[in-house]
Parts: sequence; structure tokens; C-alpha cells
Amino acid sequence: MTIETISEVKAHGGVQGVYRHASAATHTDMVFSLFMPPQPEKGEPVPLIWYLSGLTCTHANVTEKGEFRAACAEAGVAFIAPDTSPRGPDVPDDPEGLWDFGQGAGFYLDATEEPWSRHFNMANYLIDELPALVADHFPVDLERQSITGHSMGGHGALTLALKHPGRFKSVSAFAPIVAPGQVPWGRKALRHYLGEDDAAWRAHDTVALIEDGARLDELLVDIGDADPFLEKELRPELLEAACEAAGIDLTLRRQPGYDHSYYFISTFMADHVRWHAARLTG
Amino acid sequence: MTIETISEVKAHGGVQGVYRHASAATHTDMVFSLFMPPQPEKGEPVPLIWYLSGLTCTHANVTEKGEFRAACAEAGVAFIAPDTSPRGPDVPDDPEGLWDFGQGAGFYLDATEEPWSRHFNMANYLIDELPALVADHFPVDLERQSITGHSMGGHGALTLALKHPGRFKSVSAFAPIVAPGQVPWGRKALRHYLGEDDAAWRAHDTVALIEDGARLDELLVDIGDADPFLEKELRPELLEAACEAAGIDLTLRRQPGYDHSYYFISTFMADHVRWHAARLTG
Repeated sequence: MTIETISEVKAHGGVQGVYRHASAATHTDMVFSLFMPPQPEKGEPVPLIWYLSGLTCTHANVTEKGEFRAACAEAGVAFIAPDTSPRGPDVPDDPEGLWDFGQGAGFYLDATEEPWSRHFNMANYLIDELPALVADHFPVDLERQSITGHSMGGHGALTLALKHPGRFKSVSAFAPIVAPGQVPWGRKALRHYLGEDDAAWRAHDTVALIEDGARLDELLVDIGDADPFLEKELRPELLEAACEAAGIDLTLRRQPGYDHSYYFISTFMADHVRWHAARLTG
Repeated sequence: MTIETISEVKAHGGVQGVYRHASAATHTDMVFSLFMPPQPEKGEPVPLIWYLSGLTCTHANVTEKGEFRAACAEAGVAFIAPDTSPRGPDVPDDPEGLWDFGQGAGFYLDATEEPWSRHFNMANYLIDELPALVADHFPVDLERQSITGHSMGGHGALTLALKHPGRFKSVSAFAPIVAPGQVPWGRKALRHYLGEDDAAWRAHDTVALIEDGARLDELLVDIGDADPFLEKELRPELLEAACEAAGIDLTLRRQPGYDHSYYFISTFMADHVRWHAARLTG
């Protein structure tokens, strides 16, 4: 497996890179960004935080606006930001031409339905292919991984962590979609990617996974109380109820006045990085 | 004088705003961004840091990528980012169609030559019009202002501070153009804006201003030693020599491995904010 370096720039004492590679999971080229912190001993593996982005984003949004590098450099952890879906002229896209489905909206699952199933295999990509590729090319320690994400990416972080117990040392999210089977963005995506039978959706729905027995030790979630998607798409009260019923230690912080943007994310990013780092390096 | 709010978003406990207003100095609409820190006492005036951007930039580049908000919030200082020039269909632009002159490249001076002199009056705009407008609409304390900038904006920060002694409590720059009269970007701009007689250029050239007697108490400059414009456009050794001859306390830090991008700027931004804040609030 080879990767192509698109750019590598020094930042906060480390290196912010952007890389491209051919993916067997998505049958496309995929681009990701990786920040490697300053390394006191060159080549010594460092822990890795995964950040999954929201609808319409690429790796670039958090890389430019996320304000994670200072905290990652200080804690000595790497930070990887994959794309949100396969892309390209051969990849199918939203039949309605909207932004909430298709390219830029992979929902971090493996599609089972035509025409999506050939390319939209983001779960396979993120759980199997990309970690192996990254560990092959960079000194990251796959025994010490954590995961976070925003909105659709918060959904991705939560569901992937619930479906792969023990894989991630810690899990957090910014304004996550927690019950895609119950909200418009999620229902549209799950119906297309997984088919009309909503029984199959439960394995890709945080609240349903918890109801069906999946567990996390603890969970940190920030969400703005001025988020315009709060009531219709995010519905944090469903996560609260599921975690309470299951005995999951959820810290849900409703941040007064914050919206859904990277101004919200960047405000709390350093706090999330430090929270993960304490669990990765403690 | 009225301003139009384009957006106001909560960030790092304060408010990141973007505003538009009709400018008498440039005879165009102008857009700027302003971060107001959290205010323990609402309406109590706070100090203000000016950030002048480089070639091709608008207010948006540093607003999105600058990583200044956490440090400004902690220090209780506001941060304003004006545009780099007037813009619009009626505003003349580079006759060669390049990016290093005209719109996006105002060089923070008042043009004397046609067709530039009607619109390209960024010095008048930044020294007279915009401070009064901002103080009229926001609780900022014009007795406590500092200034910094990047590249062409570093040139702007240094020359405006040298030409207006006592206006700014402190001055710093990221990879500034220090001798525009001696380098390609600068010579092109000064020739168009000020005419062929290079004697008139000296009042808009940091090194020449110092040689001609202008003074600052102290100056903080960061510059990456992997900056691709170092030798041809930036020439920090000319600033070093001028400051040494004039007895100006220059701290010039050549940062190993850093380039000219916002990855460089954001790495050292918090440090500059804290340096200014110590001089603004001490």
C-alpha cells in the first residue's frame, strides 16, 4: 500500500500532512490529513485521535479551522481527519442534488444497496484499511486510539466505537447525530444505503445500538444550545435517556449560545484533545 | 456611520463578528471581522489588537485559520481583521491580472496616482475611519491599541506604527515585507500607487522610515526559515541592520522549518497575542 504526499507543513512543532491513496474499500482515491506532533524520540509511536467530519466536509475543514494542533502537540498525540465519503465522477451522488446525502455524506457505514454498495464502504475503510495504511507509514500506536467527530461524524465516532468494543480508549463527540433512524438526515441516508427495512438500520444508530446492548464506559459530548439542528436532527435527549437506562457514564454539556459551526468546535476542541490524551497517555 | 452585521457567532466565550460598512476613505463597501472577548462587565471597553493580512487575503483567512481567539479570550482583548484593499467592479485591478497588486494588495497606504488614488486609501481607512467606526459600535478602548500583521500586512503594521508614534502600545509582525522599495512585490505596488519617483516611497518602507529617523521602542518579529519568500521579498536582515543602527529593540526569531502559511502564523499567534496583551493590560 502506497500513499502520495499532497503537502507536509510544519505547524506547532509537528507536521501537518495531507495524503492521497487508492482505497480497496471504496474503489476510489481517498484523501486524509494527519498531524504528527513533535517527537522527542523520532520514530517512537504516538497515540492517535480520529476525527470524523460532518456533512459536506472533507479533511480540510477541521484541518484549517479545528484548532487542535496546539493541544495535540502539547500532549504528544497524532490527529487524523479522513474524508466523509468516496468522491469522483464514477461515484453516485444524491439523486435530488442536495448536500445531505451521497458524496460528502457517507455516514461511516458500509452500504448494502445498489448503486451505493460498491463505493460507500466508509466503515470498512476506517476500521480496517486506513488504520493499517497509517500505521504502515507513520509512527502511530494502534493500541492507543481514541475517536471523536462532529454531527454526522459524531454519529460515526459513536457507532464505530460501540460496534468495535475495545478498539478506542475513549470516545467523544461534538453535536452528534445520535438517532439517525429517527431524524430526517439519518432516515434519508439509511434508507438509501441500507434499504427500506429499518431493522437493518439499528446497527448504525447510536441510541438503537445502546438499546440493543452495546456499551461504552464513558462518553463526552458537547452541544450548543443555539445549534439550529438541535431539535430536528441531533436530539441529545435521546442519547441521555439511552445512556441513563444502560448505565453509561455520559457527560453531556449543553453549551450556552453556541451553534453548529467550527467556531463551536474549535472552542471546545482543545478540551476534547486533553480529555482523550489523559486516557491515551495516562 | 452605520454598520451591517453579516454574522455574529459565539466562539471561545466571546463573539466572532463580520461586518460591512460604506467607507468614505475607499469609496466602496468594506468588510472586517472583529472578535470581542467575553466581558466580565458588559460594555466595559477592552484593548484592541489590529491584524493586517497579506497579499490575496480578506478578513476571512485569519478569522478562520489564525487561532487567535483562545488567547484573546483569556487575555480579554479584542481582535480586528480588516480587508487588504477596496474591492468591487468599479475598483481598478492589476493590469497584468496577477495576484500581487491591486485588489487584495492595497499595501496599507494612500495612493497618489491615477487610477488608484480614488479607492486605494487604506492608511486613511485604518488610521482614521475604521477606528472611529469600531469605537462607535463596540466597547473597545482606543487608548489601548496594538498592531500586527503578516507579510504585506506586517509591512502595514510596521509602517503605520512608525508613522503614528504613540498610537500603538506594541507592534509585532509575522514574516513581514520590511523594505518594499527594494523587493519585487513592493516595487511593483509602490510604483503604481505612488509614482515612479522612489523618494516618495521612503515614507511607506519600514527600513527607510527607520533610516530617516522614525522609531519604535521594541518590535517582535517571527519568520520561518523555510519561507519561500525569505530571500527575495522579506529580507529580514535589512530590518535587523536598520534596527541595530537605530537602537530599536528588535526580537527577530527565525523559526526553523516554518513556511509562509497560516500553519506558521497560527503556531505563533497565541504567543504574539500574549505579548501584546502584556503591554496592553499590564
